[in-house]
Amino acid sequence: MLSFVNDYSQGAHEAILNRLLQINLEPIARGYGADHYCESAKEKIRAACESPAADVFFLTGGTQTNAVVIDALLDAYEGVVAADTGHISVHEAGAIERTGHKVLTLPHHAGKINATQLEEYLRVFWKDGNHEHMVFPGMVYLSHPTEYGTLYTKEELKTISKICRAYEIPLYLDGARLGYGLASPQADVTLPDIAACCDAFYIGGTKVGALCGEAVVFPRGDAPRHFLTQVKQHGALLAKGWLLGIQFDTLFTDRLYWHISENAIQTAGRLVQVLEEAGFSFYLKSPTNQQFVILENRQMERLAKKVAFSFWETLDEDHTAVRFVTSWATDPQNLEALREILAQEAGQKA
Amino acid sequence: MLSFVNDYSQGAHEAILNRLLQINLEPIARGYGADHYCESAKEKIRAACESPAADVFFLTGGTQTNAVVIDALLDAYEGVVAADTGHISVHEAGAIERTGHKVLTLPHHAGKINATQLEEYLRVFWKDGNHEHMVFPGMVYLSHPTEYGTLYTKEELKTISKICRAYEIPLYLDGARLGYGLASPQADVTLPDIAACCDAFYIGGTKVGALCGEAVVFPRGDAPRHFLTQVKQHGALLAKGWLLGIQFDTLFTDRLYWHISENAIQTAGRLVQVLEEAGFSFYLKSPTNQQFVILENRQMERLAKKVAFSFWETLDEDHTAVRFVTSWATDPQNLEALREILAQEAGQKA
Amino acid sequence: MLSFVNDYSQGAHEAILNRLLQINLEPIARGYGADHYCESAKEKIRAACESPAADVFFLTGGTQTNAVVIDALLDAYEGVVAADTGHISVHEAGAIERTGHKVLTLPHHAGKINATQLEEYLRVFWKDGNHEHMVFPGMVYLSHPTEYGTLYTKEELKTISKICRAYEIPLYLDGARLGYGLASPQADVTLPDIAACCDAFYIGGTKVGALCGEAVVFPRGDAPRHFLTQVKQHGALLAKGWLLGIQFDTLFTDRLYWHISENAIQTAGRLVQVLEEAGFSFYLKSPTNQQFVILENRQMERLAKKVAFSFWETLDEDHTAVRFVTSWATDPQNLEALREILAQEAGQKA
Amino acid sequence: MLSFVNDYSQGAHEAILNRLLQINLEPIARGYGADHYCESAKEKIRAACESPAADVFFLTGGTQTNAVVIDALLDAYEGVVAADTGHISVHEAGAIERTGHKVLTLPHHAGKINATQLEEYLRVFWKDGNHEHMVFPGMVYLSHPTEYGTLYTKEELKTISKICRAYEIPLYLDGARLGYGLASPQADVTLPDIAACCDAFYIGGTKVGALCGEAVVFPRGDAPRHFLTQVKQHGALLAKGWLLGIQFDTLFTDRLYWHISENAIQTAGRLVQVLEEAGFSFYLKSPTNQQFVILENRQMERLAKKVAFSFWETLDEDHTAVRFVTSWATDPQNLEALREILAQEAGQKA
Repeated sequence: MLSFVNDYSQGAHEAILNRLLQINLEPIARGYGADHYCESAKEKIRAACESPAADVFFLTGGTQTNAVVIDALLDAYEGVVAADTGHISVHEAGAIERTGHKVLTLPHHAGKINATQLEEYLRVFWKDGNHEHMVFPGMVYLSHPTEYGTLYTKEELKTISKICRAYEIPLYLDGARLGYGLASPQADVTLPDIAACCDAFYIGGTKVGALCGEAVVFPRGDAPRHFLTQVKQHGALLAKGWLLGIQFDTLFTDRLYWHISENAIQTAGRLVQVLEEAGFSFYLKSPTNQQFVILENRQMERLAKKVAFSFWETLDEDHTAVRFVTSWATDPQNLEALREILAQEAGQKA
Repeated sequence: MLSFVNDYSQGAHEAILNRLLQINLEPIARGYGADHYCESAKEKIRAACESPAADVFFLTGGTQTNAVVIDALLDAYEGVVAADTGHISVHEAGAIERTGHKVLTLPHHAGKINATQLEEYLRVFWKDGNHEHMVFPGMVYLSHPTEYGTLYTKEELKTISKICRAYEIPLYLDGARLGYGLASPQADVTLPDIAACCDAFYIGGTKVGALCGEAVVFPRGDAPRHFLTQVKQHGALLAKGWLLGIQFDTLFTDRLYWHISENAIQTAGRLVQVLEEAGFSFYLKSPTNQQFVILENRQMERLAKKVAFSFWETLDEDHTAVRFVTSWATDPQNLEALREILAQEAGQKA
Repeated sequence: MLSFVNDYSQGAHEAILNRLLQINLEPIARGYGADHYCESAKEKIRAACESPAADVFFLTGGTQTNAVVIDALLDAYEGVVAADTGHISVHEAGAIERTGHKVLTLPHHAGKINATQLEEYLRVFWKDGNHEHMVFPGMVYLSHPTEYGTLYTKEELKTISKICRAYEIPLYLDGARLGYGLASPQADVTLPDIAACCDAFYIGGTKVGALCGEAVVFPRGDAPRHFLTQVKQHGALLAKGWLLGIQFDTLFTDRLYWHISENAIQTAGRLVQVLEEAGFSFYLKSPTNQQFVILENRQMERLAKKVAFSFWETLDEDHTAVRFVTSWATDPQNLEALREILAQEAGQKA
Repeated sequence: MLSFVNDYSQGAHEAILNRLLQINLEPIARGYGADHYCESAKEKIRAACESPAADVFFLTGGTQTNAVVIDALLDAYEGVVAADTGHISVHEAGAIERTGHKVLTLPHHAGKINATQLEEYLRVFWKDGNHEHMVFPGMVYLSHPTEYGTLYTKEELKTISKICRAYEIPLYLDGARLGYGLASPQADVTLPDIAACCDAFYIGGTKVGALCGEAVVFPRGDAPRHFLTQVKQHGALLAKGWLLGIQFDTLFTDRLYWHISENAIQTAGRLVQVLEEAGFSFYLKSPTNQQFVILENRQMERLAKKVAFSFWETLDEDHTAVRFVTSWATDPQNLEALREILAQEAGQKA
């Protein structure tokens, strides 16, 4: 079946598999990420971030990365401020709370938090005579692209960063789909911009060409003390650490991470055209690889027999918002196949 | 350099890599381990365990697996009984305590716990008038092979299992190196024996031919409620779950898991011969793939320039116990190379 | 200064102090709440709840009680549903999250949750295809009276209880100010009603005549396993348990708990009159001992020099909502004193 | 029945009850320990500790205090070093582990840890090549008097303090029975000595004359950041904070804490005489208020009908170690009564 269901349903870019094959039986003296492949990947990431002093660590998945980093950055009495649609707020099964910390939510605006509301929230907290009985806002979490595929502008990111620094709390960016955010023609935020604005962020691999793996960056080299032990304690330290290192080393060689992300953006652009031509209404058109369409329910059921997409939200009794996703691996021919299916549908309906 | 440093310093068995290549761009509709490769692997594991009703889950690494399973099996007021040398007691950076549970230790006997001491411990606990102020022993943890490469006999395992059932607490077995335990000629414990005696156990992949991955088995199909969500909450649920499924599917096809484990056992046997011929004293000779040798310190330093092994324990001012490890991937020729190095050493010394 | 700042600023009812004096040097053989004073108090509470099989435990304070009970009732993957104004949501410094559980909030209606919204929330959760990646709603938390002094009707409580039972999750009621809820003329919920509708609740002592202490009731005798050990583990088990037992034994003798609560209700009634006569607008007039008034900011500052009340919420640049509280110990003469101060204020202003 | 069962089976010193009566209906403007009675008590404690900059907090009980302080002092990856007989190791139901931290045990010597063994432990940890995979020793816990009633000498305390400072980890002292340690004629450690050597400690009230309450002291004024919020988060912040403040204010007026402790020491001295005269063997004779005696089991059963003491340890099939405890409230006449009972016993036996 034609699949636009998500961006983690295929393996890894072939360059990654080739390197894994190449080094497969090479005995690698140091486990747990202390090997030279990890070191090489870290150097390339530092260069791409223009952050020569950065501390870089490799973890396996996104929820794990969020939980380990947020737990390590917060004091016991602190929580993390996030959009109410943030991945940590909704779809991580309470992994943040499991580490003892509250997710303090702000209303989202197409998946983003608003700098003015953030500042107001922090100001009111510190003025509240009862704040010693409340959870302290100890850091800010953004996702970029957001869960809606939307992007922060450079101006927005700088403003939020400035607020965080004024209140002396770190800014952390969840880049599960960062490649798609960087490759979007509408993006005016670069990796060095993110490194300059954030105190910690992760560069997503799982959804952008890797088998698994996320690269956590502390751009100013101020990783939490004994962070490796904290990673271990969370069960997140891979014995064969080079499995992650070699993937990022490959993705950060000759800007492969950007190149493969562009495929997702181009196919998403064509996807929007195809859906528009078929007369679909959009719930939200994003500048990255996720597109949200409103379907009449019977139409949705018919379409679901031929095309895989994902449920997003019930809008009313008769309509549903659904999500179509492209990825680094989306075959451009799939868009033509989709166009044909939709044309056929239209014909049958007529 | 010739390496006997551990059993996780090389990639994966080539059959695994070949299958990853084969399915690489196949769009797999269901993430998070709900795909058909995982299902096929589970069926093969159920068959190998002779446990048709078993619940099987795939996680990424050993510490993670121990933390998730132990936390899910224990009530808040319970701890896990383990040998004081158990991996969870010493080398998991407090991952168990991080989930809120105490590791209750018994003295080890070459890495194993003793059934009589276990029963005594449980008996005394329940008789203690203050036990409501103490951590309840809520489960028993064994590693098999142990951290010393030693093995429980079938009799020992059955006795410990019987004690656990008498006290109504689950028995959990950490099989990080299970393949080597099953393939050892001295082993009289089979996978169905383990499934019959234990309430939960995991079959280690990371150290036995996989890139990463451990298969958790609840042989009687009584996994903790919503265990998948608990795995997710611990940050241990891989988006591309089939990455683990396909590895175990391969390892459990045509008994590959056993065959590759035999290589570790055979090369370990040859290793013992070579070390003995060189006149080394053994700290502990194990029936599996880890061997412990006593070296005079200057000898250790000289040897370390040519052969990688790992530090185990300081014995006295002049002597150190070190560990040599073979694996599924150990090239038999390495043993000849080692023999030559040792011969050369002996020559120089003489 | 005349104080209406809260209901925990005076000691204990004299009958309690007298009994503490009486038994002060009596050696009490059993610590940790196993003494006969605690047993007597439990019997009286069981009778008052018409729940002869109830399990009753005494803890020291409200936040502690909420954290211990909620943590004991939830599975690891579950959270607690509460109003967004619930004490556990806002003013317990994240004590619930510290135990690993998310507080899942519903919008409040004058401090209460709405049964229809609760049912909708539960229904949508279980229908959501992604619910395994979300925090499961594992119980419902109500406060009665709420943080706004409002009360659930018997009908509301029964409906919420029915929903909880349909979804097989416990209903827990925070009765920090329960006495005032029971003594209010507008209340149609009795202690046996609460026992019939809830799976757990606590009867507040600290704010209703005791020095400290809350009585947790599991009306059907199904306290979580080894609950005493869980209380101990949370550091909430008092060595001199009878200190709490004797206070509740006194409060539940001859309905003292109800009688002293009536004083708070009567003085609150007079408080409303006095405030109305002075021409104040009400932010919220409650049927219990907390009243919320809107003050113009300069007026608020002047008044604060003579009367203690508490800040509630900034309404606009010029106006603030403030809270006046009466208690079991409020001297009726204080209301006359307040009336005079307000009259004087009005005179000065005129 | 004549009771020597523990030191928390009677109420509070009458001076404390009198002050509670005196201020009972006085409206105290500030809750949660911010009142002037707490402030006065803190000043007196600072003076008694000769630590004018000390931060002082009041908590309710010992297990709670240990959990809150230890959790606040440790980083996530650290554990607390304690004697294997330490209260936190054995009798706090895993409260420390519940906060995520391991208790790292050293063998006890009559309840004390040995400075040489401590230094060796720390030295070996930091030298271990695998220490990043282990729990870091992040602080040291002592109890003084210990669970065996024994005392550290000034020399021992200074040596342990020096080791802690060399390794840059805080030293924390559990003073649940501190009064008895200070009042013992064999004690050469004063409160200022403890303040000089430790980074945190608590002065026990519950077992030394108070209804409840422990005073935590950070002698150099460097309490963990937002410690009050951490206390609240653990559910350990009393609304009526002055209940604790006034008790310590009373105990630290005119050295009442020392005077009432002397009664326990004097009656314990007489207790030893009486037990010796009766021909009992001692398991351990302590310089404070706990004495450990070896009883033949039938003798124990007979005696238990007339005198309350507590089980300590089974020695062999026929003998048991039991504990007799005196306290601030022990009536000297009870010793004469005990003498008579023992004489009568001896007569019957003869």
